Amino acid sequence: MKTDTPLLTDLYQLTMAAGYWKCGKAEQEAVFHLFFRKLPFAGGYAIAAGLGDVVKWLQGFRFARAELEYLATIPGRDGKPLFEPGFLDYLGAMKWQCDVTAIPEGTVVFPHEPLLRIQGPLIQAQLVETALLNIINFQTLIATKAARVCQAAQGEPVLEFGLRRAQGPDGAVMASRAAFIGGCASTSNVLAGMTHGIPVRGTHAHSWVMSFDTELEAFATYAEAMPNNCVFLVDTYDTVEGVRHAVEIGHRLRAQGHELAGIRLDSGDLAWLSTEARRILDEGGFPQANIVASNDLDEHLIESLKHQGAAINVWGVGTKLVTGGEQAALGGVYKLGAIRHENGEWEPKIKLSEQAVKVSNPGIQQVRRFTLNGEFRGDAIYDQETGCPAPTEIMHPADPQRSKIMPEAATHEDLLQPVFQRGQFVGEQPTLQEIQARTRHQLQHLHATVRRLQHPHEYPAGVEGSLAQKKLAMMAKAKSTPRL
Amino acid sequence: MKTDTPLLTDLYQLTMAAGYWKCGKAEQEAVFHLFFRKLPFAGGYAIAAGLGDVVKWLQGFRFARAELEYLATIPGRDGKPLFEPGFLDYLGAMKWQCDVTAIPEGTVVFPHEPLLRIQGPLIQAQLVETALLNIINFQTLIATKAARVCQAAQGEPVLEFGLRRAQGPDGAVMASRAAFIGGCASTSNVLAGMTHGIPVRGTHAHSWVMSFDTELEAFATYAEAMPNNCVFLVDTYDTVEGVRHAVEIGHRLRAQGHELAGIRLDSGDLAWLSTEARRILDEGGFPQANIVASNDLDEHLIESLKHQGAAINVWGVGTKLVTGGEQAALGGVYKLGAIRHENGEWEPKIKLSEQAVKVSNPGIQQVRRFTLNGEFRGDAIYDQETGCPAPTEIMHPADPQRSKIMPEAATHEDLLQPVFQRGQFVGEQPTLQEIQARTRHQLQHLHATVRRLQHPHEYPAGVEGSLAQKKLAMMAKAKSTPRL
Repeated sequence: MKTDTPLLTDLYQLTMAAGYWKCGKAEQEAVFHLFFRKLPFAGGYAIAAGLGDVVKWLQGFRFARAELEYLATIPGRDGKPLFEPGFLDYLGAMKWQCDVTAIPEGTVVFPHEPLLRIQGPLIQAQLVETALLNIINFQTLIATKAARVCQAAQGEPVLEFGLRRAQGPDGAVMASRAAFIGGCASTSNVLAGMTHGIPVRGTHAHSWVMSFDTELEAFATYAEAMPNNCVFLVDTYDTVEGVRHAVEIGHRLRAQGHELAGIRLDSGDLAWLSTEARRILDEGGFPQANIVASNDLDEHLIESLKHQGAAINVWGVGTKLVTGGEQAALGGVYKLGAIRHENGEWEPKIKLSEQAVKVSNPGIQQVRRFTLNGEFRGDAIYDQETGCPAPTEIMHPADPQRSKIMPEAATHEDLLQPVFQRGQFVGEQPTLQEIQARTRHQLQHLHATVRRLQHPHEYPAGVEGSLAQKKLAMMAKAKSTPRL
Repeated sequence: MKTDTPLLTDLYQLTMAAGYWKCGKAEQEAVFHLFFRKLPFAGGYAIAAGLGDVVKWLQGFRFARAELEYLATIPGRDGKPLFEPGFLDYLGAMKWQCDVTAIPEGTVVFPHEPLLRIQGPLIQAQLVETALLNIINFQTLIATKAARVCQAAQGEPVLEFGLRRAQGPDGAVMASRAAFIGGCASTSNVLAGMTHGIPVRGTHAHSWVMSFDTELEAFATYAEAMPNNCVFLVDTYDTVEGVRHAVEIGHRLRAQGHELAGIRLDSGDLAWLSTEARRILDEGGFPQANIVASNDLDEHLIESLKHQGAAINVWGVGTKLVTGGEQAALGGVYKLGAIRHENGEWEPKIKLSEQAVKVSNPGIQQVRRFTLNGEFRGDAIYDQETGCPAPTEIMHPADPQRSKIMPEAATHEDLLQPVFQRGQFVGEQPTLQEIQARTRHQLQHLHATVRRLQHPHEYPAGVEGSLAQKKLAMMAKAKSTPRL
């Protein structure tokens, strides 16, 4: 299915677009920010991902004739067409001309920080909302999950093999991409391998063993066909017996100049079976053979197996990695930050809410990150129009009584970087390997307590003091002004 | 991204295929079944979905040159190519030639029932496993979730608008398709509308209101642009005030010959706000105006709002519908049921497991459903080679002591129907509307206690008595025979 189309959107983006076009506001300049409000998995950080696919989607942003013809058929409540021909002509002639700035993929990010900022004609910035949210929400969720899983594996390789349980074909391929960004070593998904250059891994399933009369015959036949790719799945019948069969075939392989790569456990008590398997492999002369484990693993199970002293050194993770498991969506949102009047002045905007933490931040936002002695110390969301005063005070997003002043000795960098200027791509195109390396380096700059999988220390990230003041004043004014 | 490719697979399918090719077993005839072991959402039923997309994927099953070239680059552990040129040539010449039988989409289904049965050359039946699981697992999960959500809404329309939080672009489009099958009235996803002919709905977001000086101006401008599509989102500033503004604009619309379609609530206490909104709308002269509600809804919240007497009559459901919410994957599996020897005889196969419920069923399976007085009474999984004896005894999947004998007066039908014969499509191609109607009718044949959202009554579905005996004998034999 072709998904690089502007129709990958909610209908209300198009009905609003028609409204903006009709009332003459279509080309009014506006700024939107894409951000999330809560870290996934009750964790201490998130890993930004998806920008590469956003860039591709935006580069293909134009309405095709067949798409406009479809839009012309959509009826309103009275059965008459929802969209005027003049509006559809306008869409047909539309060319992407917004500025996009974004936090690079593989960066650790925190609630309320704009991962993307879109500035340009109101109608265009609005029309891209849904697709951008879809791509960034999902990939950021999965890259974060993968980083957590890889953290639990303590540097041992994590193989992603979630394709069969992923949410649709490109749900799977995007998950493979994001999982690699988060730190996975490889994928089972061949299409993801071809599309993104991710290393692919795989050997055989239970059905291979079942299709032969005996397990030994199954292993022997596999070894003859593919002697340079032997990781035997040993739990089809009796796991311990299976390991012995792997050792037996391992000797045949060695006699032919090949080496047993390892065994895989996919059921049963992985802690106990892995230590038994390790003993049999070592005694059999295969101390280098890997023990791969799989079976509904996630970061918590891996951490537990590590604590139990399991002799597993390669981790296969599927369902819970590619779907997010206990959390299947990141609740990213896309909010109007400011709108520009005819006199050229920007008017900041907020969306009110009964919950203070859900009131959006106003202005044209940038994120400044402070680093001291190689450690990230805090992130300040500031208004680019007014700048970031020094020393910088970072306000807690939910508690106005709490704030943190950044040390003067800290260095800083601004996280959002140009990606499109007036619709032209001006960004960088790092390889997936470079993005994965960025994730690894970024995580090293976080304090270990922030990386902790459960009950992590809260990293200071929030609105810079003067912007927070301005926001409070706007909230007070909005509440005292009847909107009639 | 092009996902209708045989590379939408786990690498191990291809390494096993190479093995079957190398040892001469590639064309040996085999039968696989695709089934799940546990109903999702702790519910009483599931709705089969995804077959339409499976058919399309299988119809496009051929290896393109560029794909074979990519496969040729994949290295083994020794850095040498994993695949021999002869095998890649074989793949390049391969044409889909399996028989596929399947339970039609929109059918209520239960654990262990084969949703698909694939019979043909071992290598081909194995190569398609992963894609079939991906498509059926996801769509069956979401169709089931949608059926539950629609059940909670008691016949009131459910609008699916999950695109922004779905797992990737076609994760979203497939979710829209499956949600419609489960009973949703429409989607916000325009691409799903164009692709699948699903009705699309949408009006405006908070950002529309924020981009004007006042809410009233925002509503008035929208009404001018799109008078036949007015559902005003009333909670940008003050919800009750917003409803009054909607009434005011409703009168203007009416004066121009149009009618206010409704309002939408997206935050706050939906039970309280909806009754307030209903009162204001009724008193304002708009008793027909709909009250649409959204905000992280699922079947349980809808049920609760209904119990509280909320005056909501249209339900917008997003994230938890298109991702499955608390359960993000259906654990469907694909198991070898039988393999045919050179003498033409079928040998049934099982995969053992320490858990009895995970031992796969042997044979070439069909599902017989018994109906009495318009109510489904039980499903028997039987071996097509030996037939289904009458009276039919259905064994409980987990408890060999429990069984149910089907009443002799019951009528029956076999659920699996031909879809491909020797690679040629021979199935039916119902419209999505027909599939949705099938879901509705099927659910009416289930006892209300089976449909109950929580702690449902268990529907009798399991292996037919004589096949159960045969399976027990095979398990006993397998355990007593050393596999050396």
